[in-house]
Amino acid sequence: MTLTVYLSGEIHTDWRDQIIAGAADLDVSFDSPVTDHAASDDCGVAIMGAEADKFWHDRKGAQLNAIRTRKGIEMADVVVVRFGDQYKQWNAAFDAGYAAALGKSLVVLHGPDHAHALKEVDAAALAVVQEPAQVVQILRYVLTGKLPQ
Amino acid sequence: MTLTVYLSGEIHTDWRDQIIAGAADLDVSFDSPVTDHAASDDCGVAIMGAEADKFWHDRKGAQLNAIRTRKGIEMADVVVVRFGDQYKQWNAAFDAGYAAALGKSLVVLHGPDHAHALKEVDAAALAVVQEPAQVVQILRYVLTGKLPQ
Amino acid sequence: MTLTVYLSGEIHTDWRDQIIAGAADLDVSFDSPVTDHAASDDCGVAIMGAEADKFWHDRKGAQLNAIRTRKGIEMADVVVVRFGDQYKQWNAAFDAGYAAALGKSLVVLHGPDHAHALKEVDAAALAVVQEPAQVVQILRYVLTGKLPQ
Amino acid sequence: MTLTVYLSGEIHTDWRDQIIAGAADLDVSFDSPVTDHAASDDCGVAIMGAEADKFWHDRKGAQLNAIRTRKGIEMADVVVVRFGDQYKQWNAAFDAGYAAALGKSLVVLHGPDHAHALKEVDAAALAVVQEPAQVVQILRYVLTGKLPQ
Amino acid sequence: MTLTVYLSGEIHTDWRDQIIAGAADLDVSFDSPVTDHAASDDCGVAIMGAEADKFWHDRKGAQLNAIRTRKGIEMADVVVVRFGDQYKQWNAAFDAGYAAALGKSLVVLHGPDHAHALKEVDAAALAVVQEPAQVVQILRYVLTGKLPQ
Amino acid sequence: MTLTVYLSGEIHTDWRDQIIAGAADLDVSFDSPVTDHAASDDCGVAIMGAEADKFWHDRKGAQLNAIRTRKGIEMADVVVVRFGDQYKQWNAAFDAGYAAALGKSLVVLHGPDHAHALKEVDAAALAVVQEPAQVVQILRYVLTGKLPQ
Amino acid sequence: MTLTVYLSGEIHTDWRDQIIAGAADLDVSFDSPVTDHAASDDCGVAIMGAEADKFWHDRKGAQLNAIRTRKGIEMADVVVVRFGDQYKQWNAAFDAGYAAALGKSLVVLHGPDHAHALKEVDAAALAVVQEPAQVVQILRYVLTGKLPQ
Amino acid sequence: MTLTVYLSGEIHTDWRDQIIAGAADLDVSFDSPVTDHAASDDCGVAIMGAEADKFWHDRKGAQLNAIRTRKGIEMADVVVVRFGDQYKQWNAAFDAGYAAALGKSLVVLHGPDHAHALKEVDAAALAVVQEPAQVVQILRYVLTGKLPQ
Repeated sequence: MTLTVYLSGEIHTDWRDQIIAGAADLDVSFDSPVTDHAASDDCGVAIMGAEADKFWHDRKGAQLNAIRTRKGIEMADVVVVRFGDQYKQWNAAFDAGYAAALGKSLVVLHGPDHAHALKEVDAAALAVVQEPAQVVQILRYVLTGKLPQ
Repeated sequence: MTLTVYLSGEIHTDWRDQIIAGAADLDVSFDSPVTDHAASDDCGVAIMGAEADKFWHDRKGAQLNAIRTRKGIEMADVVVVRFGDQYKQWNAAFDAGYAAALGKSLVVLHGPDHAHALKEVDAAALAVVQEPAQVVQILRYVLTGKLPQ
Repeated sequence: MTLTVYLSGEIHTDWRDQIIAGAADLDVSFDSPVTDHAASDDCGVAIMGAEADKFWHDRKGAQLNAIRTRKGIEMADVVVVRFGDQYKQWNAAFDAGYAAALGKSLVVLHGPDHAHALKEVDAAALAVVQEPAQVVQILRYVLTGKLPQ
Repeated sequence: MTLTVYLSGEIHTDWRDQIIAGAADLDVSFDSPVTDHAASDDCGVAIMGAEADKFWHDRKGAQLNAIRTRKGIEMADVVVVRFGDQYKQWNAAFDAGYAAALGKSLVVLHGPDHAHALKEVDAAALAVVQEPAQVVQILRYVLTGKLPQ
Repeated sequence: MTLTVYLSGEIHTDWRDQIIAGAADLDVSFDSPVTDHAASDDCGVAIMGAEADKFWHDRKGAQLNAIRTRKGIEMADVVVVRFGDQYKQWNAAFDAGYAAALGKSLVVLHGPDHAHALKEVDAAALAVVQEPAQVVQILRYVLTGKLPQ
Repeated sequence: MTLTVYLSGEIHTDWRDQIIAGAADLDVSFDSPVTDHAASDDCGVAIMGAEADKFWHDRKGAQLNAIRTRKGIEMADVVVVRFGDQYKQWNAAFDAGYAAALGKSLVVLHGPDHAHALKEVDAAALAVVQEPAQVVQILRYVLTGKLPQ
Repeated sequence: MTLTVYLSGEIHTDWRDQIIAGAADLDVSFDSPVTDHAASDDCGVAIMGAEADKFWHDRKGAQLNAIRTRKGIEMADVVVVRFGDQYKQWNAAFDAGYAAALGKSLVVLHGPDHAHALKEVDAAALAVVQEPAQVVQILRYVLTGKLPQ
Repeated sequence: MTLTVYLSGEIHTDWRDQIIAGAADLDVSFDSPVTDHAASDDCGVAIMGAEADKFWHDRKGAQLNAIRTRKGIEMADVVVVRFGDQYKQWNAAFDAGYAAALGKSLVVLHGPDHAHALKEVDAAALAVVQEPAQVVQILRYVLTGKLPQ
């Protein structure tokens, strides 16, 4: 068995790197959104031309990013969504809902402070964890049946 | 043509009542989540027994509410999602993602302050508006072809 | 909102009648398998001719019953599956898996003794309860937002 | 033609090894659930933290295992489900129902004593056999057209 | 429970009338192809203009009839396909395959002489019968649980 | 049998009225896009606010109209697309492609001059006609089996 | 572009070999049913045990063969169905219907005598030809754009 | 992440070559329709025999080409549709609608003069550009996160 995993959500810490490094010996392929915040915000106008109105500036970028995020979620067996401590992160919750509707295995990663606010998202997940290392343990168990020592 | 509309999101103002009243003469049927906040939070334990751990208290409630919200979204032609000024509202963004993945016509309702944070949600929508009255105008136009005077 | 509910599983007690009576004031329509055990076992040969081999006797009946059970599950918004105290009841677990794969809202009804053996089935459910009255409370809450007093 | 086969059900005998060994010369890839009973029962709490309540202990494990079992069934061309002599094995019947709803080719493996109790499961199958060697014969015939001598 | 039944196949005997009359007290709605042989053959050219080449004459008619047959099969819960004693009846077998691929409950109606030639079609069916009266008995049992006396 | 028919395409002649009048005695329900050209062009900005850039002016309107057109096509059994003598009419061809991908029965209505340019669209259709009266004849035949005299 | 092609239907001439040989230089992979008539008829009882009743003898075989044929059709981009001069060949028409319902590109291969009897099957096809060499020409054109000289 | 891209539409300029050359260092595989205009028009009759009536001449070709175009669109992650300055190009708009209904990421490529006439097509797209080089920039950004300098 191999797994394709999409890592959605918070882009300001190195949680993706931790998971990818921890799972280096496993038969997993990872996809992610573009995590360069500036590029992600401006990609639309950089390629398709400037907009006077910030709303359309954002629209062009968000639709362009959707080419990558939709592909990533649709190809995935497991979608991991991380909620960080800051920002609204509505795109993360949107991705979680999108993944749930497609029947993907959803793993949610967040600190205990967000538990109540994320209860509907967590309720759609097959696992809820607090640390990236636990995501690695999940992938290892799912693929090999080995539990952490 | 008739429309089934699901009204998702913020539950602390009367925006749903405004839309339903404004559309009273149209061939629309509306569904919504349970909007009694206390009942929505405690429904799981009230019916299925108390939990010592708040996480499972929340889980029981969120899964019970999912029976209604999933049905509501899946039956809908149009899903309207409102983001208010307060709270994380991750369930609203989750519903928007769920609706988008099912190919529903998505209408997003929020104030201008949230525009940048909601750009991925807005980018999946067929309409983005600021006021409940605009949702009524949209429904009226879609069903009758009449524009506001 | 209306709900279509399919009542699958144990056929030796009156749990279906309890639920239907309890939900008499709600906008719910119920479907069930044929609950006449003898008719259900013999329907195939009664209509399509006797079989010397019990295996084919059973096959004819089970396939005929499948016309009704598949229709019932596929039309349902909510599938309630009850496991009683006796028998293997593999058809009940089969129906639960069938409903889960179709994305139906699954409610499982069983006594506490079966909890460990049913953990995979329960894990696919949005609610797990012990008494038919709790199913009625769930349907009432989902449709009206009212909790039991 | 190649086949992907998921081997679901009983985990206390070596029937999977027999099939895999017997099909070693065929173009088949096999997947299975985690068959280490203790790991399978405790995986959830081992990775995501202990639970005071056995119900949630089981839930965490069952949902984690579902990441693997759902992937295995969804990727499979053929789902083989074995029912052994002991235990309730409701998860096996659940997997059979799940596979049937997805339109997978279902092969059921059980002794003659279970035939009546499994009639609904058997009726959804394309083959019902008693011995692992027959599953190998089926795979060989499907892939090569060769019958056993 | 109500059933929608599509009656496909042989058009030279009154088997449809027998079934419809026999099921008059049941909650069933029936659809059928156009059973006027001449109209069915010539409908395309009658409406869309004559063709010099019989192949296109037939094509125009067959595609026009497909509007009705596809709708009938797609709406049906149960597809009954009857094979008579004469003609190739490839359209009947085509309809059976179409219905099977859509997951419809298939009932096949034919005399014993055709059993071997129809074995693949029968193998996709939930019931195989010889007489229209048996179809009525099946519908009665599925809807009411009553067996013939 | 009843039919739901969506009338897509050219909005400058009364072809829809001719079909609806001609089919008045048939069990058909019709849907159409908004056929008021000015309203259709300006609906977005009239409800959601003016745009300085014509591109976004058009975008707002086209997305709003999509709520109606997608619903109309998705609900339809038969999608009739008419190409007139003037304009690019790319939205008509887009609707035809959309309907074809959803497996709808497609009827194309155009004059002989457009036959070569529309060959790919026609090739996806079950009927190609030149006059609205022929669409009525098709609906009458499909529903009643009656051919024009 | 690569193509996966399933060759269904008549098994008494070497038409499959002609197509496979003719397409040897193309990027096509072919699948077929088991074409050993005796093995195909008896596979079920050879593996799963003898049956006294020919009907169940045939059933066991037909369901076993369905594992291969359904996989072959579901994996295919193009399904070629050949009707020979003899026999009822209802399984060929069944496969054509099955493929059509799944949206596969259907190519039908038969002599001119069968044209009227196969008009519904032909009407669901993207190409109708008389000779295996034409199927090779079709595959070559689809993959390379080259026409026969 | 890898991308499969289908290049639909205008066949009289070298825009496909520009995109393929520009993306030579990216992990993209491209498919296209047959772009030899004469072969595309005549393929049907060249392989399946001449037709006296141009309508059927075109039909045979268009259906044969559909084997390739449907496969190309269905396999694609991204469908790019270019509208040139000339011709009706209804097949391009048809492909866009087909892709949209399948949920493909749609990129539309056209000059500013066509913006109003293409507003419904553009409204279904995730990106609208004017030059082939912008399509390359989009593919590069989606796959690598790099923006043009």
